[in-house]
Amino acid sequence: MTGINDFRPRPDRFAAGDAVAVGNIVDSCGVCRMCRAGQENFCSEFPTLTYGGTDRHDGSTTLGAYSREYVVRDRFAYPLPVGLDAASAAPLLCAGITVWEPLRALGVTAGTRVAVAGLGGLGHLAVRFAAALGAETTVISRSRSKAADAARLGAHELLVSAEETEMAAARDRFDVVIDTIAAPHDVAPYLGLVALDGTLSLLGHLGPVALQTTDLLVGRKKLSSAGSGGRPGTASMLEFCADHGIAADVEVLPSAQVNEALDRLERGDVRYRFALDMSDLA
Amino acid sequence: MTGINDFRPRPDRFAAGDAVAVGNIVDSCGVCRMCRAGQENFCSEFPTLTYGGTDRHDGSTTLGAYSREYVVRDRFAYPLPVGLDAASAAPLLCAGITVWEPLRALGVTAGTRVAVAGLGGLGHLAVRFAAALGAETTVISRSRSKAADAARLGAHELLVSAEETEMAAARDRFDVVIDTIAAPHDVAPYLGLVALDGTLSLLGHLGPVALQTTDLLVGRKKLSSAGSGGRPGTASMLEFCADHGIAADVEVLPSAQVNEALDRLERGDVRYRFALDMSDLA
Repeated sequence: MTGINDFRPRPDRFAAGDAVAVGNIVDSCGVCRMCRAGQENFCSEFPTLTYGGTDRHDGSTTLGAYSREYVVRDRFAYPLPVGLDAASAAPLLCAGITVWEPLRALGVTAGTRVAVAGLGGLGHLAVRFAAALGAETTVISRSRSKAADAARLGAHELLVSAEETEMAAARDRFDVVIDTIAAPHDVAPYLGLVALDGTLSLLGHLGPVALQTTDLLVGRKKLSSAGSGGRPGTASMLEFCADHGIAADVEVLPSAQVNEALDRLERGDVRYRFALDMSDLA
Repeated sequence: MTGINDFRPRPDRFAAGDAVAVGNIVDSCGVCRMCRAGQENFCSEFPTLTYGGTDRHDGSTTLGAYSREYVVRDRFAYPLPVGLDAASAAPLLCAGITVWEPLRALGVTAGTRVAVAGLGGLGHLAVRFAAALGAETTVISRSRSKAADAARLGAHELLVSAEETEMAAARDRFDVVIDTIAAPHDVAPYLGLVALDGTLSLLGHLGPVALQTTDLLVGRKKLSSAGSGGRPGTASMLEFCADHGIAADVEVLPSAQVNEALDRLERGDVRYRFALDMSDLA
């Protein structure tokens, strides 16, 4: 639990013209147990989402990000560290923080054996974070086709989930398995890879999960999940990214091409995130 | 992870006439990852159970415990510490170790907020262990009828699961929830009680589990399980019990009354375990 809640905002930390980052949360109740723990993403009144959320003051629908100008509470704006490019930093504020917080909360550090299943928007950042934290990092993918990309991102190994003998040999091997697979899937094969007292964190697919108690019992394994992040974790992640030169792989499109981006997203044709450039807006 | 794997057997630790304790495991492969980690209960070849198991050498069915004399590998016999009564120590070797190992593996210590759901064979020992470890210990029960017993066992509080307002007030409150409920039940209300980064450990009911990812996501909660224990954990538990004067509440019956015990078990009519006295066997 070290390191994710060590952030204290300074009231004077912004000057006119500073570049800031805003994530997918712009407000929360601020007083519940989770907010007090610095986990505004788990606010008991549900956090106000930046886009499509409900403003806590006037009840309007939030329209953040898809505009050139907007008003945001300073508590939910983060200084964009020097050296981070705005476009490739943007996905850190959602995909990035979603994988960063569980990696930190699960104590990933030098030597931790981490596997990342699925190499997309979340997965490619999880690999970069895990490798930069010093973890022995493995990518789990359906085929060997992503081996070069996995290595480029910092992974030490690729495990092919379709290969039964590879999966069997990796049984009970990973302290942490970060599952970013977006489609519904059986969690049992991934729990099988988890080491004694280790954790499988489901981050890619939200929905019903079915499993057998024995999948957890044998090896005292844990199933968890996470999503988005709190203010302290977000600030720490941005600092870590600046220190380690980490950002997302993005393809930048002018905002006028948003529909093309959505079409290609549906086909999975992006490595690994689109960033929309709003400067073409009037 | 401290304390459960700090046991090293001594080859000369037994002398003729010594009292020993034998648990529900009498053998294992000894070389797999789990055995090497001191978790023979999770042996990849499945441990040899004391009763109804298959002997690794001659393939016969094991008949341990229900006899006056038997042969057992010394590695799976534990010195019975001075001060522990054989009958009330007996359930420690199955119910006891099943709750002891997850409490230790989950880092329960002074000040940890622990809830124990279900006050039976497993639950009453979980309460005693948690309280002796210094945890703030709460019993969760369907009604208030077990309040006096919970207090006698060392619990500081009783939470009534049928009372919605009590359950809502306890949301996100416990670092560890030990669920010993034997009947199939929805895990969602118990996950709701788990604190940020905390764990619900399912120990009472084995079978299919269904849940929603969001039950884990909000609060980054963990679902786990455990069962029986390894040699280091068993030895540590027995020492802890001797040091803290902990044993099970048992009703001792002569082995000739085994059928009465089974009938009463089926009705849930025991507080909290039967121990069969084999001295009436020829």
